[in-house]
Order: sequence, then structure tokens, then C-alpha cells
Amino acid sequence: MPVDLKPPVAEDLHPIAGLRIGVTEAGVRKAQRKDLTVFLLEEGASVAGVFTQNRFCAAPVQVCREHLASGHPVRAMVVNTGNANAGTGADGLVRARATCIALARLLEVSPEQVLPFSTGVIMEPLPNDRIAAALPAALADAQPAHWARAAEGIMTTDTVPKASSVRTTIGGVPVHATGISKGAGMIRPNMATMLGFLATDACIAPELLQPLVRELADASFNRITIDGDTSTNDSFVLVATHKAGNASITSLDSPEGQALKAALMQVAQTLAQAIVRDGEGATKFITVRVEGGRTEAECRQVAYAIAHSPLVKTAFYASDPNLGRILAAVGYAGIDDLDQGTIDLFLDDVHVAVNGGRNPAYREEDGQRVMKQSEITVRVALGRGSAVQTVWTCDFSHDYVTINADYRS
Amino acid sequence: MPVDLKPPVAEDLHPIAGLRIGVTEAGVRKAQRKDLTVFLLEEGASVAGVFTQNRFCAAPVQVCREHLASGHPVRAMVVNTGNANAGTGADGLVRARATCIALARLLEVSPEQVLPFSTGVIMEPLPNDRIAAALPAALADAQPAHWARAAEGIMTTDTVPKASSVRTTIGGVPVHATGISKGAGMIRPNMATMLGFLATDACIAPELLQPLVRELADASFNRITIDGDTSTNDSFVLVATHKAGNASITSLDSPEGQALKAALMQVAQTLAQAIVRDGEGATKFITVRVEGGRTEAECRQVAYAIAHSPLVKTAFYASDPNLGRILAAVGYAGIDDLDQGTIDLFLDDVHVAVNGGRNPAYREEDGQRVMKQSEITVRVALGRGSAVQTVWTCDFSHDYVTINADYRS
Repeated sequence: MPVDLKPPVAEDLHPIAGLRIGVTEAGVRKAQRKDLTVFLLEEGASVAGVFTQNRFCAAPVQVCREHLASGHPVRAMVVNTGNANAGTGADGLVRARATCIALARLLEVSPEQVLPFSTGVIMEPLPNDRIAAALPAALADAQPAHWARAAEGIMTTDTVPKASSVRTTIGGVPVHATGISKGAGMIRPNMATMLGFLATDACIAPELLQPLVRELADASFNRITIDGDTSTNDSFVLVATHKAGNASITSLDSPEGQALKAALMQVAQTLAQAIVRDGEGATKFITVRVEGGRTEAECRQVAYAIAHSPLVKTAFYASDPNLGRILAAVGYAGIDDLDQGTIDLFLDDVHVAVNGGRNPAYREEDGQRVMKQSEITVRVALGRGSAVQTVWTCDFSHDYVTINADYRS
Repeated sequence: MPVDLKPPVAEDLHPIAGLRIGVTEAGVRKAQRKDLTVFLLEEGASVAGVFTQNRFCAAPVQVCREHLASGHPVRAMVVNTGNANAGTGADGLVRARATCIALARLLEVSPEQVLPFSTGVIMEPLPNDRIAAALPAALADAQPAHWARAAEGIMTTDTVPKASSVRTTIGGVPVHATGISKGAGMIRPNMATMLGFLATDACIAPELLQPLVRELADASFNRITIDGDTSTNDSFVLVATHKAGNASITSLDSPEGQALKAALMQVAQTLAQAIVRDGEGATKFITVRVEGGRTEAECRQVAYAIAHSPLVKTAFYASDPNLGRILAAVGYAGIDDLDQGTIDLFLDDVHVAVNGGRNPAYREEDGQRVMKQSEITVRVALGRGSAVQTVWTCDFSHDYVTINADYRS
């Protein structure tokens, strides 16, 4: 039951010149399921990525980092669902590399030019033979217009495929950005999410891609949480095919750089929020904005304490304005010198608490009205500085328990 | 559905000489419910306590700290359920103090000699008039043998009253310790829990009580978690009535000090574990033991990451050995230089993962067998030191969501 989220319409997703996508069924975990996706990049494309900070990072994440660091230009990315190839030790690395070797052979490139991505169950051996056997079918399927198909191909517990696309003009030239994402559980990305792919045809100096992908991740995928569980496989990749014909962007701070960043940010935030809207069992989309902090870090601490509290999340599920639970989470967020006497709490436009206590003008029915909405903004004013941070999350429902109790069955 | 937890038998709870307990119905939130408990201490008793580190600490917690710091000997403690008097600002302090004044007047002591405790809904005004009106009935009820009644009197979402009692011999003299606790949700005590009361008739130098209560809390209430939400009202209090007649203990490291500490620790750990066994919706009691860490702090970080993960907790609920989720939690616990290649995982006696990967000898049916038990030990060996820490928690079930979505209705 995704919150205000519709499947993408294939025609709304702009193809990115220089990039083709193929999807097929490899039978990784279940038969007759689109579970293998390849992205094929023409020569000249640039790729940058950010990956999970989980110390149990998956084998494909380790291989991605190695291959990006090798400096070989990336020519293909291969994504399987059904198996995360995480918690698989040295054998997992061998299997992730075998997938790259198989695809590299078909494309006549070197294995370092292939990036592997996996998502699914942890601590099971990757069936890389079945993946290798299905690669020719994926290549045969490859088309620039296959973004919607790819959004489906990378789904696991997602109920809706997630894609977003914008068209903008840079220096009078049309430039496009299209991206897809997946994920509905084990979502509290730390550097990136499991999984986001974003491509643009913009011409841009390749060395700008890495700072750009980090900045995009930090304001999108790194600001969402569903259950506070940081995945072993989080990956967010930005591809620039440089085919749009705009004068190449050489600074992110130039007007052209800003225009491109704004376009990409719009897609990245839409994709990140789509993950929350489709969070496991989600019935509400909740924006937590913490302002008046001394630092952005302490604003984030407070925002995540609220966003991770099972008590807060179940109250949202019940549409119950049991808002003291939010104050309790603010209080245990870990700011040692926090003074409760300066804290205000708002639910959308409703002023719930003032100076750490219940606002005398607050009426339960006003809180109730906002709690019944499917989209809610919690605003906490700490009253100790000017820093602001926003985090997006969802509620915690019976279906979350059902989905995660039954995940492997 | 508490896990292996039975209500206490009143006759098993040793009275503590010098301490009487009275319980009555004040109608704080609901009528016809035992919601008001008073502890009356004879002159000469010593009291020490530890309280929540939540910065939104409740008004009664603030008043307890003030009154204990004032140096006046404590003569009474008053506990109400139904209302936490937290997130209530300056008005909450006035109401907490009014309760102390009312009881002090009846007992002809000063208000600083009364400690107030509240538990229940946050951000609602405390109906201190109803509490004051019920105090005479509570006093009329006071008896040394009323520990089981008190365990009932302080319950909120608890399904079972929690009490524990031991009798030991110190220097040839019988000494007793009896305690009660409550709490089933908003449980991740940080310094103490919501609420624990422990009393002994042992003679002990009063200045030893504060270090003793801290040590007891750190190895009992501070090692449990249900939902990771640290309450605004956590309080754990140790009372010594000095009536047993043993030669007064002047050092916790003496044989007599050690004997008393062991007796009190047994009660404190039993009470703390009882809270987890009665955790909201709990169906499993889980011990998380992390060993081989460089420091105790990092062992705790890993243990809490596992114990708070909704994915791990729902897997336990489902008896599903989806144990990669435990590895993922270890990985995101925040140890920056953690090497996954040295980590082993055990489920009771079953060796699940070795050197960060699946143990080739591990069979799913062995994991399944352990997961079906109602009591399970997760053991993580980090392989980087000799520190060890243990945390107790429970699983995450449909009933947790039901209980917390309906709490105020």
C-alpha cells in the first residue's frame, strides 16, 4: 500500500542517449521473475558511485569499489535481485567477479569495466552460473527506452517500480536525467541506497561526477529511513553519457552546473522519497524537519531518533496524536546539553508543544486532523541555533511485521 | 504473552523490616484500577536512585533528583500510573511538587522527604487533586507484606506483575532484598528503568548506596531493550532500611559487601529480565552476547544494533533463521575499522557464520531448531579483543504494533 506513489509511465521516462538497458529472467531465486538487468554504456560515458558504509558490505559492493578505483572506463552494470551476495566471505567475491568476467567476455571489454550489483537474501551463495547463462538474453533485450522495464527488473519487496525523469535546458541545449531506485526494507542508507541508478546525457567534466553523486546522495537517499537498518548492499550510481551536446560543465557552482544539479537533485529526491512511500507496510509518508539546531549533525541526530522510534511510527500508523512520544525521542537523541525548555513541536500547521510543554492552545482534535492525513510534516524547533535538516520516513504497521516475518517463505 | 514469566506469589516476597506499602485506586486515568502506590520508610532508612538520561526527563524525575540532592532523609515514595507527567513544562513541576506536599502533610514530614514517580501517557496534565484525595486510603492500606500488591499497583501495559526476592546470610545474620519493576514499552533504559524499586534490610554505610545502585543498574536495567525508546521517566531506586542487624557493611569489596551485592544483583537482573519477558507483544526472550571486542563500549554498540533491528526482531518472531540480518546489524553498528573477515556468529550452540561468511557446516535446520525456542542466545565473536557485553531483548510481533497503535484508546 504505497503512499501517494504510482508506477511510472514508460513514455514519461526520457531515454538517455548512449545508454541501453536489457532485462530478463535468470531464475536467481524464483522462476519467471524479471531478476536480471544490464545497463550498457557507450564508450566515453563517466560513472561515479557511493556505496554502503555497512562494514559487512556485500561482495558486489567491494568489487564495484575496486573496479571504479581501477580507473578503467565503465561499460556495463549488471544487477540481480533474489540474492544479495552479502555475508558470503571470500567465495562471494569469486562469484561477483565471475559475473563481471562473463559479461565482459560477451561485450569484449575487460572485467574491470563491469560493475556488479546484487540485492536479496543475505548469506546465501550467489547462483552466478544461472546469471551468466541469462546474460545473452539480457543483452538481446537492450534498448534506450527500457527504463520502466529496469525499474521493474530491480524490485524485491517493492510493490511499485520507482523511476523519475526530467528534461531541462542548459546553455540552450536540452539535457535529460532519468533514474530508477528500489528498496522497501533494510532502509537507512548511509552513503547511498539499495539501489539507485541515475543517468544524464549532460556533458560534464568527468572529475565533477564523484562530488556531484555524493552531494546528491546526501540530500536524497541519505535522508530517508524505513526501519533504521543500513543494508549491506546500498549503492547509488550516477552515469553521464555526455551526449546532450551542451558546452561541457566544468564547475558545479556555475549557472550551468547549478541547473544540472537542480535537475539531478529533483530526480534523486523523488527516487529516494519513492522508496519511503513504498516502505514495507507504509501507510503514511512523514517528513521530519528539525530546525534551530547548533549543527546539522545534531539536527540529523534528533530527526533520526524520531524517524526510528517504533513508538512514534506506530502512533502514526494508528493516526493517534500521542505526541509525547516525539518529545521523548527528541530527549533521548543524544544531545547532552539539550534544554527541554526551549523546544517547540509542530504537526503541519498545528503548534503542539511550546517551551517543552503542551501548548495551552493545542486541541487534541487539531492533532487528530493532521494525523489522519497520508502525508504529515513533523517540525521540531530546538531553539539553540540556525541549522536545519530534513529526513523522510514512513509509519510502522502490521504489514511491516507480516512482510518481514514472511520474507523468505 | 510473557515469555517464561509467572506472576509472583505474595508469600515468596520477603517483607523488608522498616518499610510498609499501600496501594489504592485514585482514578488517575481510568476508574477502578490500582494506580497509586506509596512506600513508607521508617526513620533511619537510606535511599539512592538513578534516573533517565532522556533530556526530556519528566517532572517527577526532576523533583526526585532535587529531593535526593537536598540531603533530607527520604520517608516516603509515591507512584502513580496513568500519567507520566512528562513533556508538561513548568506546570508539571508544580503538580509533582503538590503531590509531595500533600503526602508530607499527612505524614508530618517535609516535602523534600517525599520522592514522586509517575508513569503513563506523556504531555497530559497530572490530575494531582485526585491523587491527593486518594493518599489517605493508600496510607490506611500500608503493610510490610504488600510487595505483590505494589507490583500490581505500578503496572501499565505490563501483563504480569514483576517482583523478586532473596534471603541471604551476612555475618551469620539473615538479610533480605525484595524488589518490583514495571515496564513493557518505551524500554531502553539509560541509567535505570521505568520503574524499579529494590529494598533491603541490610545494614550498610549509607554513602555506599549510590555507587551500589549505579553498579546494579548498569548490569541489569541498563542492559535491556524492547523498542530502543528511552523513557522520560526511568527511575530505579534502592532502599536500605538497616534493620537486619548485620554488622554494618563499610565496603562493597569486603566479603559481606560482595555477598549483599550478589543478592541485590540477582533481584535486579531478575526484575530487568522480567520487563523484557513481558515486553509489548514479546514471544521470545533473546540474550545477545558480544565477545571479542576491543572495549565493552563497542560490544554494547554491536549488541544494541542487533537488539534494536526491526528486521532481526521480526525474524525472531517468525522463527525464521534469516541470520544475514544479524550480520548486517553488526556491520552498521558503527565500528569504523571492523573487519568482517574475523567475525563468527552462533545461535545457541549452532555455529552459523565463520570469518564473516556462512559456515560450510551450517545447516538451515539447525538454525531453525534454535529459532523455534522461546529463549535464544545470539553470540557474536568479533575477534579483535577480549571485552564482553550482554544485552537482553525480545522479538517484534504483530501484537507490538497492536498494543502501541491502541495505547491511548
